[in-house]
Amino acid sequence: MLGFGNVNRTLVRLLQEKTADLRRRQIAWRITGVATRRLGWIADPQGLDPSLLLEKNFPVGSLKATAPRNVRDWLHAAQADVLFEATSLNVQDGQPAIDHLRAALEAGAHAITANKGPVVHAHKELCALADSKGLSFLFESSVMDGVPIFSMFRDSLPAIHLRGFRGILNSTTNVILSGMEEGLSFEQSLKKAQEVGVAETDPMHDIEGWDAAVKVAALVTVLMGEKIALDTIQREGIRGLSGEAVRAARESGHPYKLVCRAQRHGNGIRASVRPEQVPLSDPLAWVAGTSNIVYFETDMFPGLAITEINPGLEATSYGLLADFIRAVSD
Amino acid sequence: MLGFGNVNRTLVRLLQEKTADLRRRQIAWRITGVATRRLGWIADPQGLDPSLLLEKNFPVGSLKATAPRNVRDWLHAAQADVLFEATSLNVQDGQPAIDHLRAALEAGAHAITANKGPVVHAHKELCALADSKGLSFLFESSVMDGVPIFSMFRDSLPAIHLRGFRGILNSTTNVILSGMEEGLSFEQSLKKAQEVGVAETDPMHDIEGWDAAVKVAALVTVLMGEKIALDTIQREGIRGLSGEAVRAARESGHPYKLVCRAQRHGNGIRASVRPEQVPLSDPLAWVAGTSNIVYFETDMFPGLAITEINPGLEATSYGLLADFIRAVSD
Repeated sequence: MLGFGNVNRTLVRLLQEKTADLRRRQIAWRITGVATRRLGWIADPQGLDPSLLLEKNFPVGSLKATAPRNVRDWLHAAQADVLFEATSLNVQDGQPAIDHLRAALEAGAHAITANKGPVVHAHKELCALADSKGLSFLFESSVMDGVPIFSMFRDSLPAIHLRGFRGILNSTTNVILSGMEEGLSFEQSLKKAQEVGVAETDPMHDIEGWDAAVKVAALVTVLMGEKIALDTIQREGIRGLSGEAVRAARESGHPYKLVCRAQRHGNGIRASVRPEQVPLSDPLAWVAGTSNIVYFETDMFPGLAITEINPGLEATSYGLLADFIRAVSD
Repeated sequence: MLGFGNVNRTLVRLLQEKTADLRRRQIAWRITGVATRRLGWIADPQGLDPSLLLEKNFPVGSLKATAPRNVRDWLHAAQADVLFEATSLNVQDGQPAIDHLRAALEAGAHAITANKGPVVHAHKELCALADSKGLSFLFESSVMDGVPIFSMFRDSLPAIHLRGFRGILNSTTNVILSGMEEGLSFEQSLKKAQEVGVAETDPMHDIEGWDAAVKVAALVTVLMGEKIALDTIQREGIRGLSGEAVRAARESGHPYKLVCRAQRHGNGIRASVRPEQVPLSDPLAWVAGTSNIVYFETDMFPGLAITEINPGLEATSYGLLADFIRAVSD
């Protein structure tokens, strides 16, 4: 496990809870390596104690672990079959996550990530590398938590043609807009979102639409099979909206949402992330708070929408668990 | 192809349109048998001419076909690898569709159906028979047209626990309610739905909630792994609603919908189909006309909704095509 914040910690809990179900699928697990800035690279091929790992601020010395010095040595020391990569996003080039996932595949481990940077910047390369090794590169948790969007298109919608999509893919801005509709100013609503742990300490990445734009790029890359540069996505955040404007829009029956869009256009893709006023008859208008939606337009279904309502902590980690089951069952 | 109405006719068109895509998947196809009340059982292992089949009222004699006398002889004469069963529903016991699907599996053909009767009345038996023969029994098109609900739970949501669901699964009643909201009486709205081909000549099956109840039973059987008798589903249709009541409910912000529900309760399932008033903040309130929705409650996602908006003729037939690709690719 690379990164040991909420996502991988909750994954440990899910692995424990689903152990019997996994055993029925002939899957056994142990955690043989964890790496974080605080812990460094630690490994024990016999398995680290999950309960100790889940204790807050446990002393590293209480684990019988070795301490390799880089990702390659760590993967080797851990005898890893699977890498769960859950570090934070680097929008510009997806590094160092890409190098870590590449190292995993080269070391013979499935590469599973919750990080959309590698999907946008190295999808083709990592898929090809995984294929050549008979391994999987999977990333279900990188967009819309662990809702099975990528898996659905890959496994359940064969021979379908995706014309475009639109949706609400960033929770932070959606929570802030919901707060503003209820009477708060932008600053008050942001502060509240930070207090409940939805918005990050540095929220500009979300507020300026970067997070949503990277998700659009990930969906376009994987589901539409098209290359798209981030700077070709028209991007406008929610910073320019006042509380008054947001409340007036809701009252007029056309609330503001930070809407993501992508559509085929000639040989390319037109994509945008920007505040739009949507009518109440549009399912997007009713997706509030941390809920997400994506509305797909395909040649077989003119409208197929997936909505994730009030996700909990499990949602993202479940995507990693599902990818794990897929990878080792194939 | 057993039954040759809209569903299988459109499937022929989709097979033609997607031939290049199928070829890339190493899949070739030809239609070696068609059976309907008008045509009888006709077969030609060299392939019947799809264009002739799609012509209305073509003379059967224009096909170079043999005419076996029952389903077993027909499957044998057609040298069928796959049966597409798209006959009409028998609510009470799922026959004769079950016998036809059984015959296909026994003859070494994958059994694919758009018919929910066999799912409710013979899911376990047909799955076991298919397994024992190394074949597939698939039925994606039996609920919510071809939207990949069954496939999503089977392939994309491993180790998840479904607690319950609710949704709008019958188009005819939803179209009638939409028409009543726009000012029509029940009778006027039904007549209009019949004129546009949404409601059947004998619409009682839909109006009294039978179609929706069978869909609930199919979802409970397959996704929740529980047996459920149709007569244990609390069932009330929309016949008791007046146009005035429907319009007053919409105006009050709590429109009527024919809501399907199932929920685990102790060791069993509580399920119902009945008109309910839903608040506008509920995504069900905005699902109009022929659109459908199902809202799943699972241990990993408290709310995961799939909405099918304004499906066309392709939607159901696409489910058969997707099942076909799954069956022959496994």
